[in-house]
Amino acid sequence: MIGQITVIGVGLIGGSLALALKKAGRCRTVVGYSKTKASLRNALDRGAIDRLSMNLVDAVKDADVVVAAVPVGSMGDVFQAMAGHVPKRAIITDVGSVKGAVEQAYRASGMDPAMFVPGHPIAGTEKSGVQAAFAQLFIDHKVILTPLPENLAETVGVIRLMWQNAGAEVVEMAVEHHDEVLAATSHLPHILAFNLVDCLAHMHEQREIFQFAAGGFRDFTRIASSDTKMWLDISLANRNALLPVLNDYKQHLEYLIQAIENGDERKLKDVYDNAKLTRDRYGCDKKSEL
Amino acid sequence: MIGQITVIGVGLIGGSLALALKKAGRCRTVVGYSKTKASLRNALDRGAIDRLSMNLVDAVKDADVVVAAVPVGSMGDVFQAMAGHVPKRAIITDVGSVKGAVEQAYRASGMDPAMFVPGHPIAGTEKSGVQAAFAQLFIDHKVILTPLPENLAETVGVIRLMWQNAGAEVVEMAVEHHDEVLAATSHLPHILAFNLVDCLAHMHEQREIFQFAAGGFRDFTRIASSDTKMWLDISLANRNALLPVLNDYKQHLEYLIQAIENGDERKLKDVYDNAKLTRDRYGCDKKSEL
Repeated sequence: MIGQITVIGVGLIGGSLALALKKAGRCRTVVGYSKTKASLRNALDRGAIDRLSMNLVDAVKDADVVVAAVPVGSMGDVFQAMAGHVPKRAIITDVGSVKGAVEQAYRASGMDPAMFVPGHPIAGTEKSGVQAAFAQLFIDHKVILTPLPENLAETVGVIRLMWQNAGAEVVEMAVEHHDEVLAATSHLPHILAFNLVDCLAHMHEQREIFQFAAGGFRDFTRIASSDTKMWLDISLANRNALLPVLNDYKQHLEYLIQAIENGDERKLKDVYDNAKLTRDRYGCDKKSEL
Repeated sequence: MIGQITVIGVGLIGGSLALALKKAGRCRTVVGYSKTKASLRNALDRGAIDRLSMNLVDAVKDADVVVAAVPVGSMGDVFQAMAGHVPKRAIITDVGSVKGAVEQAYRASGMDPAMFVPGHPIAGTEKSGVQAAFAQLFIDHKVILTPLPENLAETVGVIRLMWQNAGAEVVEMAVEHHDEVLAATSHLPHILAFNLVDCLAHMHEQREIFQFAAGGFRDFTRIASSDTKMWLDISLANRNALLPVLNDYKQHLEYLIQAIENGDERKLKDVYDNAKLTRDRYGCDKKSEL
């Protein structure tokens, strides 16, 4: 049982975590901080938080756990503003999709690295804001923790238990490894989807193109409706891991374009068959996991 | 009311059309032709066809309408085999995703162009085969007809009515225009999805990558489970329209990679914002259409 959890940024992720913990009855008080009063009011009305604050120092001063749930690019400001005002006992964690940049931002704030356990829930929808939050968001989803060398096992254990109480399955990996894996599996597809929709939007038959788009296109581009500020931050914060996979994808694409240009059926067939095989296998794994 | 419809290739599309027409009671007899007996048996068991034939000449000899529902690359063989055996009154149509190549293949067979009405139902799933067929597949979906200059209006009208009876909304456009629009809206996303999954499958952390893939990735790559023979045919048959959009996409991607490399937030923001705006608007249009 945690005493007070302070959630910095009550959006889809912060709001859903607060709802899940309240529902599980695994913390006494949830304090929500946001720069926008409407979000806090909404979070209060939905029962996600017990108390709202628009003053960061006030919001964290009695916290046992602080969850930074703001876009990756805003983490630095949040840590700077908190430094010196968080109780010594408080454990700080975050939900950012990039871990290297967030670790750096935390260390730059001068706060104790032993008390910071970086985290990343692999959950979300293309919607954003507390109005899209729901208590079941993390059930059967993975949360990756990337503990720092300074962390004690007990400190990590508190954050692990917090996510387990929200229904998640917690795994651990190194910061750099997290950033590489997520660049490939999450950041790359988002950038490709943004790129596709922007590319088509610039074509002269734009209206017609979208009119004749079928279900495949709809699914493929759903993630292009995601919060752009969040993805802007991720794209820049994780660029060291992203650039190699983006360039790898581009080279693969050039190979495919060349094969189509040359009418090279065998080369194309190898790519399509391997993709289908992999995707079908992956699809099955997922089903058995749910 | 059509007397006899012969469906060449009783897969997802051919099978669903047969089921829909039987259900609507808008044709007396459906004859199914396939090279694989199991598909025909299955179609017969499911009530999609009244009679099966593994002899193409026999299957078409009494037809009023012939629907060629085989992969685009097999259309030529089917037309060649039918030529001289189809009754003069019979109207021939197809369901291929590329229209230029199919028109060419038809003309090469020497059959009367006035009796061929090319068509393309914008419907389907990533599944294939008659076992995935269902009568409602075309309801509220568009079917594009690309009539030839030689077609009489009455001839086009028969095929139009056939699709309307299956629940579809029929629109007409020129062959070349169809191929350009579909290259952008359907063929391009499929190729990008095949490319992504193949690209990730070659990475050394392959297993882990797929293990940490979230819902966004799942949706984005669903179409990489599509029938590879079908997409191989489409990629090659429509390459004249596809290559410009593929190269356009690649150039857009290079621009994005450059922006990420340079940390150019403004350029990235323009692309992401425009993509989200367009996708959100498109998403709304679709909802009101359904």
